[in-house]
Amino acid sequence: MQFSAAQIAQLINGKIEGDPNASVGSFGKIEEAVKGQLAFLANPKYEEHLYTTGASIIIVNESQELKQPVNATLLRVPDAYTAFASLLAAYQEIEAQQLTGIQEPAYISKTAQIGDKAFIGAFAYLSDGVVIGNQVKIHPQVYLGKNVKIGDNTVLHPGVKIYHNCVIGANVTIHAGSVIGGDGFGFAPQADGTFKKVPQIGNVVVEDYVEIGVNSAIDRATIGSTIIRKGAKLDNLIQIAHNVEVGHYTVIAAQAGVSGSTKIGNGAMIGGQAGIVGHLQIADGARINAQSGVTKSIKTKGGAVTGSPAYDYTSALRSQVVSRNLPEMEKRLKELEEQIKQLLAEKV
Amino acid sequence: MQFSAAQIAQLINGKIEGDPNASVGSFGKIEEAVKGQLAFLANPKYEEHLYTTGASIIIVNESQELKQPVNATLLRVPDAYTAFASLLAAYQEIEAQQLTGIQEPAYISKTAQIGDKAFIGAFAYLSDGVVIGNQVKIHPQVYLGKNVKIGDNTVLHPGVKIYHNCVIGANVTIHAGSVIGGDGFGFAPQADGTFKKVPQIGNVVVEDYVEIGVNSAIDRATIGSTIIRKGAKLDNLIQIAHNVEVGHYTVIAAQAGVSGSTKIGNGAMIGGQAGIVGHLQIADGARINAQSGVTKSIKTKGGAVTGSPAYDYTSALRSQVVSRNLPEMEKRLKELEEQIKQLLAEKV
Amino acid sequence: MQFSAAQIAQLINGKIEGDPNASVGSFGKIEEAVKGQLAFLANPKYEEHLYTTGASIIIVNESQELKQPVNATLLRVPDAYTAFASLLAAYQEIEAQQLTGIQEPAYISKTAQIGDKAFIGAFAYLSDGVVIGNQVKIHPQVYLGKNVKIGDNTVLHPGVKIYHNCVIGANVTIHAGSVIGGDGFGFAPQADGTFKKVPQIGNVVVEDYVEIGVNSAIDRATIGSTIIRKGAKLDNLIQIAHNVEVGHYTVIAAQAGVSGSTKIGNGAMIGGQAGIVGHLQIADGARINAQSGVTKSIKTKGGAVTGSPAYDYTSALRSQVVSRNLPEMEKRLKELEEQIKQLLAEKV
Repeated sequence: MQFSAAQIAQLINGKIEGDPNASVGSFGKIEEAVKGQLAFLANPKYEEHLYTTGASIIIVNESQELKQPVNATLLRVPDAYTAFASLLAAYQEIEAQQLTGIQEPAYISKTAQIGDKAFIGAFAYLSDGVVIGNQVKIHPQVYLGKNVKIGDNTVLHPGVKIYHNCVIGANVTIHAGSVIGGDGFGFAPQADGTFKKVPQIGNVVVEDYVEIGVNSAIDRATIGSTIIRKGAKLDNLIQIAHNVEVGHYTVIAAQAGVSGSTKIGNGAMIGGQAGIVGHLQIADGARINAQSGVTKSIKTKGGAVTGSPAYDYTSALRSQVVSRNLPEMEKRLKELEEQIKQLLAEKV
Repeated sequence: MQFSAAQIAQLINGKIEGDPNASVGSFGKIEEAVKGQLAFLANPKYEEHLYTTGASIIIVNESQELKQPVNATLLRVPDAYTAFASLLAAYQEIEAQQLTGIQEPAYISKTAQIGDKAFIGAFAYLSDGVVIGNQVKIHPQVYLGKNVKIGDNTVLHPGVKIYHNCVIGANVTIHAGSVIGGDGFGFAPQADGTFKKVPQIGNVVVEDYVEIGVNSAIDRATIGSTIIRKGAKLDNLIQIAHNVEVGHYTVIAAQAGVSGSTKIGNGAMIGGQAGIVGHLQIADGARINAQSGVTKSIKTKGGAVTGSPAYDYTSALRSQVVSRNLPEMEKRLKELEEQIKQLLAEKV
Repeated sequence: MQFSAAQIAQLINGKIEGDPNASVGSFGKIEEAVKGQLAFLANPKYEEHLYTTGASIIIVNESQELKQPVNATLLRVPDAYTAFASLLAAYQEIEAQQLTGIQEPAYISKTAQIGDKAFIGAFAYLSDGVVIGNQVKIHPQVYLGKNVKIGDNTVLHPGVKIYHNCVIGANVTIHAGSVIGGDGFGFAPQADGTFKKVPQIGNVVVEDYVEIGVNSAIDRATIGSTIIRKGAKLDNLIQIAHNVEVGHYTVIAAQAGVSGSTKIGNGAMIGGQAGIVGHLQIADGARINAQSGVTKSIKTKGGAVTGSPAYDYTSALRSQVVSRNLPEMEKRLKELEEQIKQLLAEKV
């Protein structure tokens, strides 16, 4: 698709400076963009690129001053970055919506129901009783187990696997390779040192507007549901164990893990590679620093922790600073011991 | 499938209280269950749900007292939870065993051998020389490289990938997205700063009754075999490097990693996100705490460690407690220094 | 394929001792090898196996002395291990090169271009505009999004997923289940506590001779490119966030993670489960210890750090040693306090 400066100006309500017929078919960074690309300049620090870029159209801030002539057509808006981002979002939306229909070969059970304008990619597998909403995009090589439900407008990227009975809301995005509904890790130790598997018969419920990254794992509940609540955002390679609940609009960064039955409140932020042990309560708005190991519930709303084991952020930071001086502290301690020894000796 | 209270009572050896013809088709948590569902009550703390649940049949402890009338049919057994769990296991077993045959399209080499009552899902790929035992379930989108052997009753969930020459035992379960037999990470540094790949020509051997979670990675040996011994249980997103051995009935929690050539004994327990460096020996029954970084062999049977770097559990815990008081300790040290300074000054 | 001792001797320039017609079809460890297998003995410590092995041909060091008769044919070379490894590499190369053609069913867009002697496995998916170089091996169940480019001789193992517009160089190897080009994790917090997705419209560029392990995740840039430079080696389950750059011949061990926009220099080594926060600069040749949490740029070439938060390796190690003595240090501190208290009391 090609767009003219005039068309784009209309979409973002921008003021044209230069050739309104200049046209672009893709996006680029201003320092790398070539002819036929659209770029933006938000930070005046990078102004120099305005004069050297190959971009055909550039979105700039209203306030941007020019010290030299510019080859590209400029589109002036109050906030260049926001205008650029919304343009991209619109473009991707259009592109995604064009994807509809069923590609062959796909495996679709006779009892599966598929909504209007849905897309089912080749090598996708829809088991008995699957229900797919309207405008859902099931990309190639996705697996949906028995009775899986997928809400309207949801996008499952290539190779996503969803086990039986899991329920995915509307406007959800799950990235390639993530697995929803694998068995929770439950094995009862037996007297002879072996284990008996505890059947995992619950499911996973992923509510509306959730986004889940690449190759993450969200296990089904032993009984009941593992729940990812509305609008939560999970990054790549994350582990969510059985019966966990993640609150509304909580954000979890890559490679973090949450153990069984822990409940995380709304609007919490969990850093990368953090771990949370099982059966805890994490308050709304909690801040868990990257690589923390959380072993106790966080009861204070907005409470911040760091360290492994994790505790109060401010205290932990102070201890970390002192801990770097430990060898010097030990030296001071030794000196004191010497001095006291001498003082005591002199006394005698 | 529908089951009557009378049928279930027979299976779990329970005493019927109420309508023996009440029937159920699925399971639910007592607080959420609806008509047609089976629930259980094990913890007397939740007794109130007995009177409000929509469940049609409820398994309860023999000893359960009733303060109000109950709509559902009750089945009394010595231990409600155990009865419920064994019922579920039986149900899942029946359901799984019904799955047989080959779905089209699958890619099956002419030299692959497939046992009795096996299931091969659509889009599965069986290379030359693959041997599949009886009642094995190869779910959709699984990949089996050349000469892979799979023992009887083993279940490979959707999207599992097993590289050439790997050997999987009987009664093994591998969850979606796990990869068995990827190349070990071996690169010989060259004088010019580049690397030469060390060919990884061994394999992976997974013994009977092992369970492996979602999106885990078990690398093939450089030479010989990476071995996961009988009954070991590995959770999601775990890394097992080349030439590692994991002992019988050892349990490894999610996101833990074991580096090359380390040998882990039998009955060990390794916490989530723990890491073990290469070429170590970990004794039978060792306990490695979550997020530990193990840099030395654990020689004592049942030895417990924590921390990064990890050391003796009890000592490490003591140090962690003191380390939280470090800022206060430094203050005390400073005070002492002041006092000594004064004492010494007065002496003069 | 069967090879005679004479043929192998020629390939590795070895001196035959025994039957030149002895033949082998596979490789084995000397202590486990059976008839028809080739083994090697590099470490004289294991000499005993020479006399008991079932191997038909054994590569040994020129200098190897024999205390007993040996059944196998020996091939003497200056360095047995190197000869064995290069033989294996050659064997795997031959085997891999034999793999060509397109297996059915594969999904190949009419606008995809495929080079000479390429292999496309069954259930692979090639979107519009995909360009595949010569002798590329696309294994089964791989997904290539729109306009993905793959350079000559590159190998994509089963189930690899590459999103649209990503560019993979020549002689690259990507192992099963890895995902290249998933959306970067970018969400702009809104005043009402919800998030607005920041469109991720960049791509990933993987340069020549890179190897990426199993189930790793490399996210596409917000704008521009996430770049893995020539010859870098990434292990399994690694997270590379949007706009990261990994330098030439840098090595990253399993389960490590790099946050957004961080630039890692050439020839760096990053240990397993290490984490690096966003927007840092890591100098050439930096050494980051396993499980480190890097929160500040490393500016010194070859600088080594450890700990979480990470700092200078030598200092951190000293602090770690002292920190194990913390309970004892506190005791000493208490003693001093007692002594001083007494001294001060006596003064009065």
